[in-house]
Amino acid sequence: MVNVRPHLSIRRKTHRGISQKSGLPPGSLIHIGQENDSPVTITYVRYDQEGFEHQKVDSVKEIQIGEGKYPVHWINVDGLNKPEIIEEVGEKFGLHHLMLEDILNTDHIPKVEEFQDYIFFTLKALHFNQIDMELDTEQVSFVLGRNYVLSFQERPENVYEGILKRMAEGKYKNREADFLAYRLMDVIVDSYYDVLEALEENIDISEEEVFKSPIPEHLKNIQSMKRILLVLRKSIFPLREAINQMQKRDVSLISNDTVQYFKDLYDHTVHIYEEIENARDINAGLKDVYLSSLSNKMNKVMQVLTIISTIFIPLSFVVGVYGMNFDHMPELHWKYGYYYIWIGMFVMTVGQLAIFRWKKWL
Amino acid sequence: MVNVRPHLSIRRKTHRGISQKSGLPPGSLIHIGQENDSPVTITYVRYDQEGFEHQKVDSVKEIQIGEGKYPVHWINVDGLNKPEIIEEVGEKFGLHHLMLEDILNTDHIPKVEEFQDYIFFTLKALHFNQIDMELDTEQVSFVLGRNYVLSFQERPENVYEGILKRMAEGKYKNREADFLAYRLMDVIVDSYYDVLEALEENIDISEEEVFKSPIPEHLKNIQSMKRILLVLRKSIFPLREAINQMQKRDVSLISNDTVQYFKDLYDHTVHIYEEIENARDINAGLKDVYLSSLSNKMNKVMQVLTIISTIFIPLSFVVGVYGMNFDHMPELHWKYGYYYIWIGMFVMTVGQLAIFRWKKWL
Amino acid sequence: MVNVRPHLSIRRKTHRGISQKSGLPPGSLIHIGQENDSPVTITYVRYDQEGFEHQKVDSVKEIQIGEGKYPVHWINVDGLNKPEIIEEVGEKFGLHHLMLEDILNTDHIPKVEEFQDYIFFTLKALHFNQIDMELDTEQVSFVLGRNYVLSFQERPENVYEGILKRMAEGKYKNREADFLAYRLMDVIVDSYYDVLEALEENIDISEEEVFKSPIPEHLKNIQSMKRILLVLRKSIFPLREAINQMQKRDVSLISNDTVQYFKDLYDHTVHIYEEIENARDINAGLKDVYLSSLSNKMNKVMQVLTIISTIFIPLSFVVGVYGMNFDHMPELHWKYGYYYIWIGMFVMTVGQLAIFRWKKWL
Amino acid sequence: MVNVRPHLSIRRKTHRGISQKSGLPPGSLIHIGQENDSPVTITYVRYDQEGFEHQKVDSVKEIQIGEGKYPVHWINVDGLNKPEIIEEVGEKFGLHHLMLEDILNTDHIPKVEEFQDYIFFTLKALHFNQIDMELDTEQVSFVLGRNYVLSFQERPENVYEGILKRMAEGKYKNREADFLAYRLMDVIVDSYYDVLEALEENIDISEEEVFKSPIPEHLKNIQSMKRILLVLRKSIFPLREAINQMQKRDVSLISNDTVQYFKDLYDHTVHIYEEIENARDINAGLKDVYLSSLSNKMNKVMQVLTIISTIFIPLSFVVGVYGMNFDHMPELHWKYGYYYIWIGMFVMTVGQLAIFRWKKWL
Amino acid sequence: MVNVRPHLSIRRKTHRGISQKSGLPPGSLIHIGQENDSPVTITYVRYDQEGFEHQKVDSVKEIQIGEGKYPVHWINVDGLNKPEIIEEVGEKFGLHHLMLEDILNTDHIPKVEEFQDYIFFTLKALHFNQIDMELDTEQVSFVLGRNYVLSFQERPENVYEGILKRMAEGKYKNREADFLAYRLMDVIVDSYYDVLEALEENIDISEEEVFKSPIPEHLKNIQSMKRILLVLRKSIFPLREAINQMQKRDVSLISNDTVQYFKDLYDHTVHIYEEIENARDINAGLKDVYLSSLSNKMNKVMQVLTIISTIFIPLSFVVGVYGMNFDHMPELHWKYGYYYIWIGMFVMTVGQLAIFRWKKWL
Repeated sequence: MVNVRPHLSIRRKTHRGISQKSGLPPGSLIHIGQENDSPVTITYVRYDQEGFEHQKVDSVKEIQIGEGKYPVHWINVDGLNKPEIIEEVGEKFGLHHLMLEDILNTDHIPKVEEFQDYIFFTLKALHFNQIDMELDTEQVSFVLGRNYVLSFQERPENVYEGILKRMAEGKYKNREADFLAYRLMDVIVDSYYDVLEALEENIDISEEEVFKSPIPEHLKNIQSMKRILLVLRKSIFPLREAINQMQKRDVSLISNDTVQYFKDLYDHTVHIYEEIENARDINAGLKDVYLSSLSNKMNKVMQVLTIISTIFIPLSFVVGVYGMNFDHMPELHWKYGYYYIWIGMFVMTVGQLAIFRWKKWL
Repeated sequence: MVNVRPHLSIRRKTHRGISQKSGLPPGSLIHIGQENDSPVTITYVRYDQEGFEHQKVDSVKEIQIGEGKYPVHWINVDGLNKPEIIEEVGEKFGLHHLMLEDILNTDHIPKVEEFQDYIFFTLKALHFNQIDMELDTEQVSFVLGRNYVLSFQERPENVYEGILKRMAEGKYKNREADFLAYRLMDVIVDSYYDVLEALEENIDISEEEVFKSPIPEHLKNIQSMKRILLVLRKSIFPLREAINQMQKRDVSLISNDTVQYFKDLYDHTVHIYEEIENARDINAGLKDVYLSSLSNKMNKVMQVLTIISTIFIPLSFVVGVYGMNFDHMPELHWKYGYYYIWIGMFVMTVGQLAIFRWKKWL
Repeated sequence: MVNVRPHLSIRRKTHRGISQKSGLPPGSLIHIGQENDSPVTITYVRYDQEGFEHQKVDSVKEIQIGEGKYPVHWINVDGLNKPEIIEEVGEKFGLHHLMLEDILNTDHIPKVEEFQDYIFFTLKALHFNQIDMELDTEQVSFVLGRNYVLSFQERPENVYEGILKRMAEGKYKNREADFLAYRLMDVIVDSYYDVLEALEENIDISEEEVFKSPIPEHLKNIQSMKRILLVLRKSIFPLREAINQMQKRDVSLISNDTVQYFKDLYDHTVHIYEEIENARDINAGLKDVYLSSLSNKMNKVMQVLTIISTIFIPLSFVVGVYGMNFDHMPELHWKYGYYYIWIGMFVMTVGQLAIFRWKKWL
Repeated sequence: MVNVRPHLSIRRKTHRGISQKSGLPPGSLIHIGQENDSPVTITYVRYDQEGFEHQKVDSVKEIQIGEGKYPVHWINVDGLNKPEIIEEVGEKFGLHHLMLEDILNTDHIPKVEEFQDYIFFTLKALHFNQIDMELDTEQVSFVLGRNYVLSFQERPENVYEGILKRMAEGKYKNREADFLAYRLMDVIVDSYYDVLEALEENIDISEEEVFKSPIPEHLKNIQSMKRILLVLRKSIFPLREAINQMQKRDVSLISNDTVQYFKDLYDHTVHIYEEIENARDINAGLKDVYLSSLSNKMNKVMQVLTIISTIFIPLSFVVGVYGMNFDHMPELHWKYGYYYIWIGMFVMTVGQLAIFRWKKWL
Repeated sequence: MVNVRPHLSIRRKTHRGISQKSGLPPGSLIHIGQENDSPVTITYVRYDQEGFEHQKVDSVKEIQIGEGKYPVHWINVDGLNKPEIIEEVGEKFGLHHLMLEDILNTDHIPKVEEFQDYIFFTLKALHFNQIDMELDTEQVSFVLGRNYVLSFQERPENVYEGILKRMAEGKYKNREADFLAYRLMDVIVDSYYDVLEALEENIDISEEEVFKSPIPEHLKNIQSMKRILLVLRKSIFPLREAINQMQKRDVSLISNDTVQYFKDLYDHTVHIYEEIENARDINAGLKDVYLSSLSNKMNKVMQVLTIISTIFIPLSFVVGVYGMNFDHMPELHWKYGYYYIWIGMFVMTVGQLAIFRWKKWL
């Protein structure tokens, strides 16, 4: 009744995959992550400033870079559960074997690596399920070459639908491969803003509730929030560094024009990082609020006990006195003794209540 | 009755704007911030060492840089809710599109960026409402060109009124555009001192009160103060870095003479930063004071309970004894048994009170 | 009954060895660590891209570097309790005397040192006993020369069995000495993943339990976890730095091809380091959860006491009143006085229970 | 009675001055600090290796640098409440206007700035009033030129009396202006040692007392100490950096000989900084000691309550039983029933006390 | 009875010395530290690869560097309470006056300083008295020249006895002055291991005890440990930096051969520093263990109180009921009423105990 919102949680990824792999020779291609049977779809997009063409292909063999009327090619692979497809792509584009391993390892930390002919990014996209309050991270990788972009996603839903739609509408038509890479990263960074906003709202609501009536569920919520913010920070920190390199370094694959956009993206990641740190700070403060609200509640319980006890224990003593069986107790024989005793007890009680009120206990 | 001061609070800015924008193509000009309908006013100031001229203009078209008898031009735009005006200014002065976005995004972090022909600053001015105890941040941007300064403010009130007035009075007459930029930033930095002073006063008062009688409101106040100081730090840190660049770098648009003033400004920001850190430290200490004051209060309640109980429970036992109905209880038949018992109980009580006093409980 | 899992613990290594040594002249070869009598085994492996040969040798004299048909030689020494064997190896390969001391000092911090003709690594392998919940660190050293690798292990079990097996199976056949060094380090790094996974699982289970019913054992567990994570961090930090040097520096003994593998290894160590930091953070949070769960439990106990007391203390007063022996107490003589009093007490009790329910204490 | 030492406190300086100034044009000379009417005294000292001459002068006009038989001139200004005097000095020595502002702003952070012909230092001298336990900071500035030193002090008492006296006694006679600057700074640094010693003594006494009997006054003291140590750190940190620059940089105005003395001074500031950090750490620990002493005290109170209650509540029950009025209660009619009951209660009580002693509650 | 180990403590050194000195001219030679009257002994050792000669000398005048058949000379001064001896040494070897001051100031922070012809080290040796549990720091300084080493110790006991003995035994015979300096520092570093081991053992024992039964003495112990670890860290940090400079810098007085030994020493100091940091962390955790053990203990006390109260308060009510004096109370006249009431109370008590057991309170 007090707090029926579902608990915050993170979809846990086990390191199982990695430790299973620990017996294998280095360089084996294995999908490390949640198993699923959804099919892997390959989307093949070609475009230039004039036009746009996109199709689903079944095999990497259908891809012909450098051919056709469109100079820029974008291959998007949805789903990592078929390592053989990744291997085929790797062979076709001459990608290093260790890089393919990184693409398949959904537990890999975000990074950017510059090779001779291409730049490799591996990032975490975030998905926050508002209904289950569950945070899910998705491994997302890109390869930016001279005139192509390869993108790999862990989950079957395409996070770049919006980009495809806008391309189809004829927007963005005048751009090169590096701008596409920027656009893909922009989608990832935006996913962090969505999560952050949901978390900040959650913290605000929790704070209100904890002040009102602290229950152990709140502490669970605070501890979960802490875990989620750690995951966020773990993801945003290397992402920020990766984008920083893109903005600063004289990367040959990225034009001066696009660098300006990467600078803007960098500002966003700095902002997100700061907000995460602040949220961590506020969340840590919530724990203290919780503990002191508990203390407060206990103080009140103790006050009630003390008030009841200090009023009735003396009264009980008084009635005990006149329950004694001494032969000679003159008061017992007074005519109005019983009434006097009631009056005396009434006066005592009023006096105590006055003292309590004066001590601000009531 | 105890603490009727209104609570500290921050006017919350939602990230809504940003996440709304997350579906849009990069580069769209949208005002991100609180909606309001107040008109956008453009103030056009021209001056040199000799004279000064200022007017309100309706459209950017009336601005003619490089013309007229005054060499230095200052265009101040109050209000960001008409992106088309910002766009017009951008076109007129050849500003980068992403920079215009930053001007309009009131959630943007402070930064300075140097371009070929101009320097771009975006900062946060602070306003602290003493009556509502509410902190409000305002997005403020400048563009410093060779012989012009553009300034953009989020809110309709002109924070530079003082500068205009002093110009009109003939002070500052012998200066260039870079000195005007310094003066604008000086106004912003001064707004931090005002807020800081209000906060430090608030912390001092809170400390006094918490020592006297801790109530949950105090904890709320401490948590709010924590949030406000985080906002302050988030704002001052990049501001300090921005001014640091102005003071150090061999920025062509800033003369050696003005650099000295920027150095002075830098010292101020360092000072503010330190004061914020100290205030954070003191505020964190307040939380401990609060918690231990609670503990103290509870200790006192417990002592009262213990004193009452330890005095009356044994007495009740004694009167219980003489309430028993044994056939053979010699004391009951003593002539002064009843009086003896009163004397015994009196002695017992005095003894206990003496022990309590000796144990420093009373 | 509540928590029968054995406690986490670390096999303590005393510094005794080192302080015993403190009286000796610098440069004395002494095994610092746990004494054991297990024999020292020397495995001598020779291989090239084509074939593989391995044997157990009794003395270092049987080793002939640069001879035989296989160019790459690997000598693995299992057990450090015979310093004279280490000394022999040192003489044969011209190793510095201080380096031999480091190999024998199982309390040495991990490091990498580059000499003229060889690189020296000393690392910690981790072993986590799932049954006893005991973490054990093992001192592991390598020397990578132009065409040989020397490896030294503290314990008699060979941690490189897997590598030997795979070599025998004909995998890895096309590699040089530097790749073998990489493979040895990879085995060490994998041992960290195993330990980390066991710890994270332990933290998760503890969190669940602490929320349910906090017992002092949990606090012991949290404190032990803290110690273990400190040991882990102390080990991984210099390991990460060592691998970082291998990946960055223009180390002549490591080919460009192998550098790529060291880069991959570096990513793993960064990941492990981050996970350790997060685990530390979560573990520190557990302590707060424990303390507040204790508080909660106490709150409940206090509530029960308060409810019982506030219900029965007034009732006892009432029955005390009618136990008084005044001559004139009209109620005592009413026909239904006794029943009236029961009704009155029943009403009082129901009223109090209603108040408690309204105050959410029941 | 428990703690009659006066409370630690800091003489608060308001930022009022600065915010008052916030409406003024930059560059206005205003004394920011505590108002006082004490006269400003100017001491004019001239000396060389042979002799020494000193006089009080009324106006800066009497100062004639480069004239007279003594090459080195020292002008000391005591009191900042007459900005016009500072302005005159500034004009005479060609000092930058912003520097004069810094001299007058007693809230300015310590710094060192090197100009073409002189070096400017602004520092904080500390005064600790042992009787009122009040810390007071004083703004102290120097200008070191080729053959002169200017010194400015906030308060009318001359902190350099000792130097003057020693000069008069003929010590220090063989030195240049840079050595005088060192001597002035040495006096300032020594003032930190005095304060530090008083604080450490205060912490030690507090620790003793808190262990004995914690009272809320102690917490106030801890919180005050925290504030004072923050002020100290804020002052010593830039002072250390300033002296560090003097020791390292190839400052033309400071001879190699004097650099050695600045190195020594630098060591002192490093030492002070460390002591402050340690004192902060110890002070923070005191808070925990205080809180746990409170807990301990409460534990004892609770034990007393528990012991009294657990002894007397069962006894009261027993006497209640024999106060019942059943017609058939055989024990009541036993000849020695009353004595038996006393024996029974005595045995019960002794048994309980034995249990308490066994549980270590007594 | 619970913890009879003596308390950890630090032999306090007052800053008195320094502040006394604060009135003196800079450069005065005064022994700052504990006063004692023990005589100052000067040991004069000459040796080369072949032989060794050592004698006690009364005056520095007997020392003749560069003469005699042994090229390397070592002068060891035990005791600092005769500044005139230090001054004589200083004159003989041409040492800077400020350096002599540092040797005599036992409160000086450790440092290394390189001069033209010699290197100056000032360090802290640690002595831990196992019986009194008292940590004592000793000021130890060296001067390493081309063919001599000067060493100064605060206390009359010679910490280098072991080195002298080993020299006399003919070990170490083939070394130069720089190797002697290394050996002296090695003795100092070893003294840290001894202290560290004693502290870690103390922490382990404390942890055991605190879990069993927390008493205020433990908190005192934790606070003392904190102070000691701060002293240790303050000493080891600059020592580590000093050795680091010796290992890295191209110091002309130290041969390449000896540099390797300094590297080894550096590793030891890094190790010690880490162990100190870990011990600090574990010690900080102990405080939480202490506080929660206190809470636990209180919880148990409260439970006992609650159990006794909740059992006997209702029973007392029941017997109170039948102690009432109503004329019409049918139960009083039942034949077995008294026995029925006992049965009823027995059933009530058993029921309550069952509830307590079910709630896990017993």
